[in-house]
Parts: sequence; structure tokens; C-alpha cells
Amino acid sequence: MRRRVHRLTVSRPGADGAGRSEDRADLLAAEEPLGIRVDGAALTMTMRTPGDDIELAAGFLVSEGVVGSAADIATMKVCDGTTCGHTDHEQPGNIVDVTLAAGIGIPAGVRRSFLTTSACGVCGKASVNDICLQPRFPVAEDPARVSPDVLAALPDRLRGGQRVFARTGGLHAAGLFSTTGELVAMKEDVGRHNAVDKVVGWALLRDQLPLAGRILLVSGRASFELVQKAALAGVPVLAAVSAPSSLAVDLAGEAGLTLVGFLRGASMNVYAGAHRIVAAAGPIAAEPAAAEPAAPDR
Amino acid sequence: MRRRVHRLTVSRPGADGAGRSEDRADLLAAEEPLGIRVDGAALTMTMRTPGDDIELAAGFLVSEGVVGSAADIATMKVCDGTTCGHTDHEQPGNIVDVTLAAGIGIPAGVRRSFLTTSACGVCGKASVNDICLQPRFPVAEDPARVSPDVLAALPDRLRGGQRVFARTGGLHAAGLFSTTGELVAMKEDVGRHNAVDKVVGWALLRDQLPLAGRILLVSGRASFELVQKAALAGVPVLAAVSAPSSLAVDLAGEAGLTLVGFLRGASMNVYAGAHRIVAAAGPIAAEPAAAEPAAPDR
Repeated sequence: MRRRVHRLTVSRPGADGAGRSEDRADLLAAEEPLGIRVDGAALTMTMRTPGDDIELAAGFLVSEGVVGSAADIATMKVCDGTTCGHTDHEQPGNIVDVTLAAGIGIPAGVRRSFLTTSACGVCGKASVNDICLQPRFPVAEDPARVSPDVLAALPDRLRGGQRVFARTGGLHAAGLFSTTGELVAMKEDVGRHNAVDKVVGWALLRDQLPLAGRILLVSGRASFELVQKAALAGVPVLAAVSAPSSLAVDLAGEAGLTLVGFLRGASMNVYAGAHRIVAAAGPIAAEPAAAEPAAPDR
Repeated sequence: MRRRVHRLTVSRPGADGAGRSEDRADLLAAEEPLGIRVDGAALTMTMRTPGDDIELAAGFLVSEGVVGSAADIATMKVCDGTTCGHTDHEQPGNIVDVTLAAGIGIPAGVRRSFLTTSACGVCGKASVNDICLQPRFPVAEDPARVSPDVLAALPDRLRGGQRVFARTGGLHAAGLFSTTGELVAMKEDVGRHNAVDKVVGWALLRDQLPLAGRILLVSGRASFELVQKAALAGVPVLAAVSAPSSLAVDLAGEAGLTLVGFLRGASMNVYAGAHRIVAAAGPIAAEPAAAEPAAPDR
């Protein structure tokens, strides 16, 4: 597997307190192209952080509406550059070869040979109408309920699980949680969209789609594309640490998804599907007086 | 012009301190598709925040290697949905029509009718080799120098100029600065790549390319694509508030760009082109003792 982290030397101006620069070893999140081939032909190329490449390819195919269960995929493997017969490798390990199951093919709306970036979820669509894929799972009817207390605890759990971010400070994360707050899966990438695809692909390969009764948490903002990915994976609740866009809210409403934004501590905004957010056991207990911050004069 | 900000009602669980939800009016950054047509045919569609759409289209064409000066473009206009003769408008105001100057065309590497997202800079390329466009300006030879003090002051100036972010908390920004720290131009978007394209397009339309002797500051991370955009616009210094990726550092080194990351207060990492970062007037003055924070017991 290719490296997720690159080591290099950076210059830190003024770091010695006297205007001179100091050199220091530093770690960076890796960003490399990953080609995804389906039935022998290039489907897409995405800029991603190496690692979980099989999951990324599987999740990408879910997000594009190509597959909906592990049975839709016959084989998946990372090419090592020697045995696959392809001559367009940039680097060994940067192409995933997928063979779809009999009867499964690329839908007409998905065009081959386009390239996506680390944050790209809708590349290759020819018109705005093509952007909106029809979810194959009935997300709107998902009866899941989650309490604000559970949601409030998720960002810390996601951050706690981020191994590469802790070393580089440069990665987005996507985490899959139960409605009682257990972390089910967590993936990292330079792109939020890739991190979500990796989580969705992880679930697909374990035959866990649709992700009914699950919460998907993303470390950044919630764009239109992330809502689309959640809907296609059958996730009823999407939560984001930062702001959603207007189109993300519109799509969540149309798809029957619950969309939570600005999830920071106990504070959060519910932009769609608020019926799923219910207090578990009556009023949230107020902090005991003794735990309040000391007054300035004490 | 279409709205940059959407107003809506959000539910805030537990906001009343007793476990009940409160509804509150909120503002969101708008995200809408923008189609870019060149010489009558669809070139791309990007998810962007409305505003500066002409600049966005112009900057996108610079980033794709299509144009390098205002003279390369004959006309640009936003279609109002009634006079342009096109029938595929999603909404009036969401298509920009570009006519290139005589002799200017779409290079072979740029494919028509692909779709980019709000964070997408390399969509439509067919292979990894196509990603790397040859810069048309000699960035590596740019003699610009900038002091760490000037760099340290830029993030606050960028944030101070962000009008929509202050209202929504949901936008990226790109700012163009002189080497003495004056803000030359600032644009916002849900996507960092769009914000950079808007700044570059703004400069192109004022015949300011190449952006020699300028600093480009972005509010988030520095990806490969942002370094590519900076190089194609002729910017010698790219600074980011957060981390660069490994490929961003590689490309900056190859292109002769200075790449600064984690620019936060006086702290920064220089990942490439450190020769351009020089202390302006000897050692950085230490803070006078009187200006230090008061001791806790005073």
C-alpha cells in the first residue's frame, strides 16, 4: 500500500525568536491520483490519500448509482503494475480494477474517463438534471431517532479516531455511528467526499447497505454532494461540524434526510428532518453549580 | 444577480435549556450550479456561490490553460434566460456565455460538457498526465520577496474582508495581496477553487496577469489543484491557513512557487520556495514587556 503520510523538511521563519528561519521535519497527508477501472475500462480518477482504496472505489460506485450491494461487484483488486495488463499506470498501487457482477453495468448518466478531485462528487455529469440521482433505498421512511446528547458527543469521538490527522493536521474524516453514539467506522482523506466514499464502500463490502439507522458525521461542511452520497447509501442522518450549503438543505429535505450542521459541543442546527432529533429522557440536565467556571475574583 | 445568501428556519435542540427545540431564522451560503459555455457549446458546470460569475468563468478558463490575457476573450455575459437562444437553462442567471477571441480555442486536453463541483479544479482530464498543465508565465523567476511579518498579518485581513462568511459561517475565501500586505482583491465561495478562480478572473479582466509579485492566500488547505491555479495565473507565493497536501508541495517545488501552510498568527511553515521569505528589517522585534498578558494574580 502506498504511504498515507509523507515526511519532509519545512522552513519556519522567525521560529528562533530572532528573525532567522529554522528547518524542521514535518509530516504531510499524502495526496495521489487513484484510477478506478470498471470491466477493463477507465471510469474515473480521483485525487485521494492512499489507504482504503478498495473501499473508496466501492463507495464511489455506490455514490454514482452503479452498485447497491456487495453482490453487484464480482471482483475488486489493486493493480500492482505487473499483472493487470494495463500500460497506463502512473505508479503501482494507484489503480483499482473492478469487475461488476453479471447484469450490472454503468448507467447512461455516468460517463467514463472523467477525473474527479479530492473533493469532487458529481464530475462527469453532463447537465444539472443528471446531478440528482434517484436514491435506491427508502431513506425518508427510516424510523431512526437520535438525541441531541448523542449527537453532541460525536465530533470528539470522530477526532479521537483520526490517526493521520493527528500527525499531519491535514485530513478530513467521515464517521459512521449508531443512534446510541457508537463509532461503527471511520475513514480519513484529503477530501471529504473521498472519506465518505471510503465509509460507504466499507459498509457495502460488509453487506451493510442501506445504512438504515446510522448517523454519518463529516468533519467539514455539508455540500450538496455529501447529502447525495448519504441518500444513495441509505443513511437517514447526516451531521456536519460546519455549515451546509443551501442546495444541501434543499436536497436533504427532498430526500427525507435529517441534516444537522454546526455540530459543536451541545450546540447544533437542524436544517431538515428535525422529527428524528428527540430528547432521549426528558430535559437535558443543567450543569451542577459547583461545575461552573470560577468567578474572576475568586 | 442570484442571491449569495439564503434565509431559512433551523431547529435548535435543547436551545431553551430544558430539552425542547427552538426554531430560529438562519442564513446559509447559497450553492447553485453555474454553466460555462464557450463559443456556443457547454464547457463545464460548477457548483458555486452566486456572485462574480463573470470573474469565475474567466478564472476557470485561465486555470484550464485556455486563456492568459483579457485579449483572449472577445465577450462574456450572464444569460438572462430570454435572449441567448439556449433552451437548457436551469435558472436564469446560472449560465455564462463566453466568446473567445479569434485564434483562441479549447486545448485538446480540456474536454467539453464535464461537470465540476464547488471544490473541483481538474475535472474533465482523461489521465494523470493531463492534470499538469504547463504554466505560461515564468513564475520560478519571479523576484518577489515577502517578510514573515507581512504574511502573519494576512489571514486577519482576509477574514476582515469576508462579508458573506460573517453572515453564514460557510464560505471559503481567496485573497490577493501585495508583498507589503495590501489587499488587492478578495472573493468568497462555497468552494476554495471557485474563490481562487474568481480572484484570478478578476485580475484577468483588469489585464493584471501574470500576477507577478503577488501573494494568494486561501482560507483552507492547499491542494494540488490550488497550486496549479496559482502557477497558471503567475502568482509566485501561495499561502494557506491550513495544511498542504504532499502533491501540492511537489508541484510548488517543480513550478518554482513559494508555498506557505499553517499560516496562523506569527507561526507558519514554508514548504517550497523559502528563498522568497525574508525578514524585512533584521530581527523581528520582541514584544515589549509592558505588552505581555497580565499575570493571573494581578
